[in-house]
Amino acid sequence: MLTTELSEAEVSGLRANKERLQDWIHHSCQWGSGVRWGDQPTETGMARLALSQEDKQVRDWFVETTKSLGCHVTVDSMGNIFAVRPGRRADVPATFIGSHLDTQPTGGRYDGILGVCAGIEMLKVLEERGIETEGGVGVVNWTNEEGARFPKSMISAGVWAESIPLETAHSLLEVPTVASLPSAASAPESMKSALEKINYLGTIPCSYKSSPMAAHFELHIEQGPHLVTAGQHVGVVTGVQAYRWYRINVTGRDCHTGSTAFQHRADAMYASARMMVRAREVADKHSCLASVGIVEVKPGSVNTVPGFVSFSFDIRGPEIEDVNVVDTELRKEFDAIAAEEGKGIAKPCRVEWQLDFETPATKFDPGCIDCVTASAKALVADRPDPESLYRTIRSGAGHDSVFTNKRVPTSMVFVPCKDGVSHHPEEFSSAEDCVNGASVILQAVVRFDRKRFQ
Amino acid sequence: MLTTELSEAEVSGLRANKERLQDWIHHSCQWGSGVRWGDQPTETGMARLALSQEDKQVRDWFVETTKSLGCHVTVDSMGNIFAVRPGRRADVPATFIGSHLDTQPTGGRYDGILGVCAGIEMLKVLEERGIETEGGVGVVNWTNEEGARFPKSMISAGVWAESIPLETAHSLLEVPTVASLPSAASAPESMKSALEKINYLGTIPCSYKSSPMAAHFELHIEQGPHLVTAGQHVGVVTGVQAYRWYRINVTGRDCHTGSTAFQHRADAMYASARMMVRAREVADKHSCLASVGIVEVKPGSVNTVPGFVSFSFDIRGPEIEDVNVVDTELRKEFDAIAAEEGKGIAKPCRVEWQLDFETPATKFDPGCIDCVTASAKALVADRPDPESLYRTIRSGAGHDSVFTNKRVPTSMVFVPCKDGVSHHPEEFSSAEDCVNGASVILQAVVRFDRKRFQ
Repeated sequence: MLTTELSEAEVSGLRANKERLQDWIHHSCQWGSGVRWGDQPTETGMARLALSQEDKQVRDWFVETTKSLGCHVTVDSMGNIFAVRPGRRADVPATFIGSHLDTQPTGGRYDGILGVCAGIEMLKVLEERGIETEGGVGVVNWTNEEGARFPKSMISAGVWAESIPLETAHSLLEVPTVASLPSAASAPESMKSALEKINYLGTIPCSYKSSPMAAHFELHIEQGPHLVTAGQHVGVVTGVQAYRWYRINVTGRDCHTGSTAFQHRADAMYASARMMVRAREVADKHSCLASVGIVEVKPGSVNTVPGFVSFSFDIRGPEIEDVNVVDTELRKEFDAIAAEEGKGIAKPCRVEWQLDFETPATKFDPGCIDCVTASAKALVADRPDPESLYRTIRSGAGHDSVFTNKRVPTSMVFVPCKDGVSHHPEEFSSAEDCVNGASVILQAVVRFDRKRFQ
Repeated sequence: MLTTELSEAEVSGLRANKERLQDWIHHSCQWGSGVRWGDQPTETGMARLALSQEDKQVRDWFVETTKSLGCHVTVDSMGNIFAVRPGRRADVPATFIGSHLDTQPTGGRYDGILGVCAGIEMLKVLEERGIETEGGVGVVNWTNEEGARFPKSMISAGVWAESIPLETAHSLLEVPTVASLPSAASAPESMKSALEKINYLGTIPCSYKSSPMAAHFELHIEQGPHLVTAGQHVGVVTGVQAYRWYRINVTGRDCHTGSTAFQHRADAMYASARMMVRAREVADKHSCLASVGIVEVKPGSVNTVPGFVSFSFDIRGPEIEDVNVVDTELRKEFDAIAAEEGKGIAKPCRVEWQLDFETPATKFDPGCIDCVTASAKALVADRPDPESLYRTIRSGAGHDSVFTNKRVPTSMVFVPCKDGVSHHPEEFSSAEDCVNGASVILQAVVRFDRKRFQ
């Protein structure tokens, strides 16, 4: 049956299969299982860094599985994998569900993975129900969304959107401090070389022109506490907050810890510690977030006061203007802290800011948001007080959808996760919450497909 | 001529050779030259980590040079090298000048190196002047004094003094963060294996019983600003301040930087930064020092709030009681900071202290101090206002002499260094200051030898 031939009630009745979705998730998590936190077989975190051997294994499974569900699979020059189930019309781009299979070094089983598995589950439901779509439908696995191994998050969706040059992405080197890749310290690998090594450097240009989409939908755990605290089942995501990533370098002077009085020091670590403390206070004042995730200290000896510290710095806020306010205020504050440390020897610390990445606030497509809203309503329609069970929400984290939104209609679905915790081995979303999200996104794709050809 | 046959005036007239001492220093610095800071050939720092290939090369030179000056050379099971020039009496232990040839990763040309080279210069002066000592005299090069590569400073003098078990030292692993040894991250090497690799695992047990000494004298740059600021030539070192080295581990919870409000975080880096800031304030209040040299942050990803931070912590004070006061106060403060961070999610950070090393305040031997004092007086006797040109001083830094002092009479000589800076490539002591120190220690050894057999 064609999607356009379904009744509204039939669309609203479409559901993903709860047990099967769990199977897709946990089967795929056999590659790159991380820290164990419980007794059950699935109670471990994930450590599947982008383009690692484990990532290759799960990619191979993704290709094989989507092919077995009738998809045509292509790989582009960033290793993005597009699996398309043809529709009735061959001349139009497919509607995609997309997310990522890479994880943080101490990540969990849901961030990204749930989104890709919901895409596979959509393919399975359509097959099972004998539904043919008007345009094709597809699932995309984006490369290195996390930015954990190669330090630009969502980089491959960014290249696809032609927002990031291919050359920049190909030459990006892995972070040497990622614990699970110890060899990175001696010879950090480039993305291109890593793609080649696992045989996922595709021949198709990475671009929305070569791999076009009608729309991009993404299901994701909230990674925050709002839904779970309010007992809500679904978040209809209207956009993503703005953020900037920096590298902050603080230069002082090495000296001996035992024989150098405080007033004779230009201690880059002490100055950095003061900056980190102040950063939270200033960000909080402006309802923004500021976070330090990576810290490198040189020379790195117990009895030498560090002369150099470099740290990553992540500022987020509702709009890019809010981020700018924090940026401006902290530049002054950091300068003042640096000037103070080392003034006793007339060699004050110096601080420099290097902007690595920025994205303004993202507003998702109203048409896609409508499809998600209608599907969320349909999901909870027969429950008591249905309107209280879903809400609109803005994402704190960036997602591949931020980049797809630059080129094609995009929106997202959030489901609750335990304690709002993510990027942690104990990240968890119940089977019920997972399948709720998968049912919503399945319906959203069908609704979008119907709307395109009305 | 025998030392006991010299007149007091002849002893007071003994001088090291300024140019030759410079030659010993800079010749030895060809192995492991570090960061260049000036145009002159000798204007570089040093990066000669203990038991590296560069350390092997300078050791080979040390052995060859002392042998050519008539010494019998032995190597013990910690790679300490003892070069002894026999005296008239074969049945008594030799009087030693000792220090170390290893450096910090961003160290200079004087810390340790000046002391060993002053020992070689002593051998040369005695040969040149045809002086025979009553007991033997020797030069010792101690292994891994810096504690930069293997994170226990003065460890090999410690084993010699039987204060540190050989097994502990042999199994000590190198620090993976030392920049100049990138391979250390993947497979950190043990001291024993490193000793074997450069062929300096000697067969003689490392002990004051197997390699006995009559006394140990050490010449060192001050590594602080007191002498240089006061325009004084020589410091007669009466002892060393107390210190403790810790590893502080702060455990919070990994979470996403974009979607986790501050009140939902247990940010181990933020808590650590607050501790580092507070540590200086508390130490300063008690006239102590507190320093952080090594910082490790996990998982080390731009967009994950760190759930674990481990940092080295060095507290120093005039007496161990002062260090204890700071320790006690900071344990309370750190606990309070940890309890604050994460209380919003009822998962406060935890902090644990691991004591890696401690040494109480050291008081050097009055007899040795007398020998140094008399020699310093003799050096400046013919200058205007001679009493203003030397002083007694306490060392802020630890030295091998801290351990030799536990078993044999010991004292030290300090000379000024530029700006009081050490553990930095630009560490510098003028040729005049170097030779002043070498002349004082030469005389001190001769005076000690005469006193022994009076």
